[in-house]
Amino acid sequence: MIQVSIVGSTGYTGGELLRYLIRHPEVRIAHLTSQSYASQPIHEVHKFLKGRLSTICEKLSVTTVAKDSDVVFLGLPHGAAAKTAAAFLNKGVRVIDLSADFRLEDAQISKAWYGPHPAPKLMKQAVYGLPERYREKIQNAKLVANPGCFATTSILAGLPLSAKGLIGKGTLIIDAKSGVSGAGRKLDNAYLYSEANETMMAYALQGHRHQPEILQELEKGGTKHLSLIFVPHLVPMNRGIFATLYAPLKKKISVEALRDIYAQYYLKEPFVTVLKPYESPEVKAVAHSNYCQIGIALSPDGRTAIITAVTDNLVKGASGQAIQNMNIMFGFEENTALL
Amino acid sequence: MIQVSIVGSTGYTGGELLRYLIRHPEVRIAHLTSQSYASQPIHEVHKFLKGRLSTICEKLSVTTVAKDSDVVFLGLPHGAAAKTAAAFLNKGVRVIDLSADFRLEDAQISKAWYGPHPAPKLMKQAVYGLPERYREKIQNAKLVANPGCFATTSILAGLPLSAKGLIGKGTLIIDAKSGVSGAGRKLDNAYLYSEANETMMAYALQGHRHQPEILQELEKGGTKHLSLIFVPHLVPMNRGIFATLYAPLKKKISVEALRDIYAQYYLKEPFVTVLKPYESPEVKAVAHSNYCQIGIALSPDGRTAIITAVTDNLVKGASGQAIQNMNIMFGFEENTALL
Amino acid sequence: MIQVSIVGSTGYTGGELLRYLIRHPEVRIAHLTSQSYASQPIHEVHKFLKGRLSTICEKLSVTTVAKDSDVVFLGLPHGAAAKTAAAFLNKGVRVIDLSADFRLEDAQISKAWYGPHPAPKLMKQAVYGLPERYREKIQNAKLVANPGCFATTSILAGLPLSAKGLIGKGTLIIDAKSGVSGAGRKLDNAYLYSEANETMMAYALQGHRHQPEILQELEKGGTKHLSLIFVPHLVPMNRGIFATLYAPLKKKISVEALRDIYAQYYLKEPFVTVLKPYESPEVKAVAHSNYCQIGIALSPDGRTAIITAVTDNLVKGASGQAIQNMNIMFGFEENTALL
Amino acid sequence: MIQVSIVGSTGYTGGELLRYLIRHPEVRIAHLTSQSYASQPIHEVHKFLKGRLSTICEKLSVTTVAKDSDVVFLGLPHGAAAKTAAAFLNKGVRVIDLSADFRLEDAQISKAWYGPHPAPKLMKQAVYGLPERYREKIQNAKLVANPGCFATTSILAGLPLSAKGLIGKGTLIIDAKSGVSGAGRKLDNAYLYSEANETMMAYALQGHRHQPEILQELEKGGTKHLSLIFVPHLVPMNRGIFATLYAPLKKKISVEALRDIYAQYYLKEPFVTVLKPYESPEVKAVAHSNYCQIGIALSPDGRTAIITAVTDNLVKGASGQAIQNMNIMFGFEENTALL
Repeated sequence: MIQVSIVGSTGYTGGELLRYLIRHPEVRIAHLTSQSYASQPIHEVHKFLKGRLSTICEKLSVTTVAKDSDVVFLGLPHGAAAKTAAAFLNKGVRVIDLSADFRLEDAQISKAWYGPHPAPKLMKQAVYGLPERYREKIQNAKLVANPGCFATTSILAGLPLSAKGLIGKGTLIIDAKSGVSGAGRKLDNAYLYSEANETMMAYALQGHRHQPEILQELEKGGTKHLSLIFVPHLVPMNRGIFATLYAPLKKKISVEALRDIYAQYYLKEPFVTVLKPYESPEVKAVAHSNYCQIGIALSPDGRTAIITAVTDNLVKGASGQAIQNMNIMFGFEENTALL
Repeated sequence: MIQVSIVGSTGYTGGELLRYLIRHPEVRIAHLTSQSYASQPIHEVHKFLKGRLSTICEKLSVTTVAKDSDVVFLGLPHGAAAKTAAAFLNKGVRVIDLSADFRLEDAQISKAWYGPHPAPKLMKQAVYGLPERYREKIQNAKLVANPGCFATTSILAGLPLSAKGLIGKGTLIIDAKSGVSGAGRKLDNAYLYSEANETMMAYALQGHRHQPEILQELEKGGTKHLSLIFVPHLVPMNRGIFATLYAPLKKKISVEALRDIYAQYYLKEPFVTVLKPYESPEVKAVAHSNYCQIGIALSPDGRTAIITAVTDNLVKGASGQAIQNMNIMFGFEENTALL
Repeated sequence: MIQVSIVGSTGYTGGELLRYLIRHPEVRIAHLTSQSYASQPIHEVHKFLKGRLSTICEKLSVTTVAKDSDVVFLGLPHGAAAKTAAAFLNKGVRVIDLSADFRLEDAQISKAWYGPHPAPKLMKQAVYGLPERYREKIQNAKLVANPGCFATTSILAGLPLSAKGLIGKGTLIIDAKSGVSGAGRKLDNAYLYSEANETMMAYALQGHRHQPEILQELEKGGTKHLSLIFVPHLVPMNRGIFATLYAPLKKKISVEALRDIYAQYYLKEPFVTVLKPYESPEVKAVAHSNYCQIGIALSPDGRTAIITAVTDNLVKGASGQAIQNMNIMFGFEENTALL
Repeated sequence: MIQVSIVGSTGYTGGELLRYLIRHPEVRIAHLTSQSYASQPIHEVHKFLKGRLSTICEKLSVTTVAKDSDVVFLGLPHGAAAKTAAAFLNKGVRVIDLSADFRLEDAQISKAWYGPHPAPKLMKQAVYGLPERYREKIQNAKLVANPGCFATTSILAGLPLSAKGLIGKGTLIIDAKSGVSGAGRKLDNAYLYSEANETMMAYALQGHRHQPEILQELEKGGTKHLSLIFVPHLVPMNRGIFATLYAPLKKKISVEALRDIYAQYYLKEPFVTVLKPYESPEVKAVAHSNYCQIGIALSPDGRTAIITAVTDNLVKGASGQAIQNMNIMFGFEENTALL
């Protein structure tokens, strides 16, 4: 039994962490912090917890929380997370950070997208929390940088191509679609029901901060010097990422062979499923779960791989993956509480 | 005042045609035909017509309909449309066909996607009903092949690139997203509310029949021998097409210059609007209207144009464009009933 | 041709007014005012207007607007509307007020729900803008109080019962359901897409301000001393009101006879349609239109009338009805621009 | 560890049963039957099971299934279920029937709504599977009639009123709203996405078969001779029941006292939560869970109780409750697999 706290527990990722933590047999919830809802019971914010969890939200005291916690999840805005992570690490508490603060390894690139880093010394220490790539490092990590939702989905879709050296000259295009909860509980006109329903749009057409994260991990996966375009779209559904990846192929390959490469690559993965050739994954098959489903297709002329992948942005794209990382860090069965 | 009939009036395109026809000052509705709803008033099928239009649906008699009609809209399945079109043309009635039967010019390609053509002699006579390209031919056309919804949106998005010779080597990718009414009122599990809501998927990953239609028109627009990938996706909204086009550029161009090319190309078009650089169009801005809005962007490295375009699949993508064609054919103001 | 201005033109009702005004053959749009978007073109707020209307929003100057306007629509918050109405009336400009400021006749009741009235002297002068009841008064009205969306729907559903003295002892219950745009473009957590989608709730369980408005008009319609419960619900759709009215009947009546009473009552109304016995109206049949459809049913024991009614909250429940009132005030065909 | 089979496993309730069964530590899944999908793996029907469960669907053989099963869930159409239940009971297998076949106790009423009963002798033996009322009987039941979704929600909302004798003269009205999955995976125009989205309607205005089920249980709960109107509505969301109950009160009571009665009544219930006075429950708080949340309000004049309740129609309204019943029948913790 471990003691777990959530710092910044009232956002969507906080709610989704609790959905899994309350059914985790090895977890006791210690502290839930919130600046805006301090002294209110958590079930007033996440109403599905009524009758199930009545922990009172507290303002953050690192000392108090650290004393009672084996691990803390950080559900804080970018920037604030890094400083708080440093404080907990100093006190010997392991940290799973759901912000973007420690996802990028290159300080220059990080600065370009997020501004000067608040805790640059920790950047090296962080482990990118994608179990399919870094499972062993995660086991002993003090600080896990939990990947973004677009990034998780896109990287899982592209990794086997990069690892096997299949990507040819030209540009890798990822046309990604997200449900609205990807924006968090943000009070912005664009996310009002009447504005986001019965419509869709692209955004960040000048560049999106998940692009360098995806690029970093695809290149680390095997193939350097990739040219990557990433265009996100907002789609009227609560949850879900759908990524369509168009990769120029270095040489001809049959769709069956390509499918086999993927199936082999993810053979032992508990949460990644590769579909039959030309089958499209569907968001609903992974909604409210930690799974990623991947579809394999080729363009009619055989020169472009068309890889499609789906996840739930709040689960495999955020809180579920964070729980998966916690399970790995503490030696629990990796799918505990995630079935 | 002209006499207008709809053959196959009870599908979504039939309903949408009526939405515009009942407010058209130069139109009298003559006959509405339906095999399944014969002898029922049309407002039992399209309930928004209650208290507004009580025409009784009839089984199709070409003789009767032809006698009373200056033009007929065909809302029939592919294949059935061609034969019916021939019968009306024989009787001197002009035809606007909303099926795919006369959209493809190449008999070989047409056969590959739709089977042997039921009226091959008429293929040459048909005018592709995209006013932005063929306005003058439409004026005198006896037979208009009304374009598909994916095709209209994708072609309008890509035409200026093709016309100006801007497309370079490599593959033109169109990642298209459609609302569910694009499938018509089809009783298929996939289109049930509980199956199509809160999810999305790609489909036709082995190839979609709008691909050759788009390719034909983009190549006729100026640039031959294009390599085109078209992948459609199903998105949980009633109406709307969102097309994201990724075009390799032959040479560098500023986003402003590219935007100017589009603005110039569509300068006099009543229904096409070009947005500011890097602004994404939104489906809701064109829903329930005959407009197409187009967004212009470049990838950060400047080598790929990212063109986004939206239409309402039932209006500019079907019935609204059909009315626009009718207005052109009969010399009415092109936007009559479409404002 | 009349000159029309909208004061407070950037909300949902402003956008919907413009949808109809731009197709109205007798209207020239003079001024559009906005505090937040002053000096921006209106099409940056209502993007469907791109390429169609480029009027620049101005801060309100009553003098300027009054000089150029035959009528102004007020799309202002409750309270602000009354004062502005007074200013325009003083300058001889007719006013159609879409706020609640002049809907209630009883100053006491008005105060209880909205606070002290900012222009009490005008209350008597205002005409309640429900054409089905007050068409003749509206013709000459200087100040029209445009009804609320819940109120319009509920009143149209209940009026024939009240007028014919059919309501018996007991409580009249109206269980009403609204789409999310009923709340306007309000930045509130509850109206975020991810909060309002895939859920529903009741609200205002302690009482809702449309209740006294409905009660006033149902009692004026014929039957005094009604006991009325009104409970609104929020439903995940952009537009639409669905009202279910349960009325204890004074005496037995057949469903056909009841249906006839409704059909007779609304016989000459251009925008009210009475359905067949036991047929339920559907929101989609009136969405984006100025129509109200009404269904007639009886409980199995025949002691309760179950009346169902639908409107589009932004059209017959707000802007469409305002246009209808304008048409009446200026002697245009009542359905001009509303077909 | 018990052996569990599902007869008729490919509908929505079958999928939802499997969602819980695969995480149940005391359950082994023995057989899954299907007429239409026989010999296909279950994950081709319920795609969330890909990589998680690959059981092959079989045509039903009662002998085979009975041999390997301690309990069977029946996900069959009304009528077919009763006969199959009889066959399994004959072989000593306990049955949880998700159809309506054994819910009504009165053979006359049952016949009026569902036709002649196929296994009338079993009617007496069946236990109505609402744990909040019949937990002890369920423990030893051979045959559990799992309640309907509207019924579960409405009964839980009304039981305390009936039990405490609070309902006065007049009519109890239940205005109920359901998500679309309540209709099952039924190929009917009305349930197509484009037909059911962005709209709502009432249905079964002449009477709905859940009305007698609700009436039976509310009367058995304490107060006889109730007059009950039940009107269901279809709302555009995948899941969820929202019931609004209007009950005439026998005598005045404060809202706090009424709330206390409910809180007391459900004090020990693991899956029923009573909210604060005048708080409305929200579907999203119970979606994908076995919980029921209940709101307590009074009309302004204090003469009518307004009780609101929500459940997930596929969970507490069907499969979750079935698992809860199974847990009770076999002595497991009642919330096993349901957290």
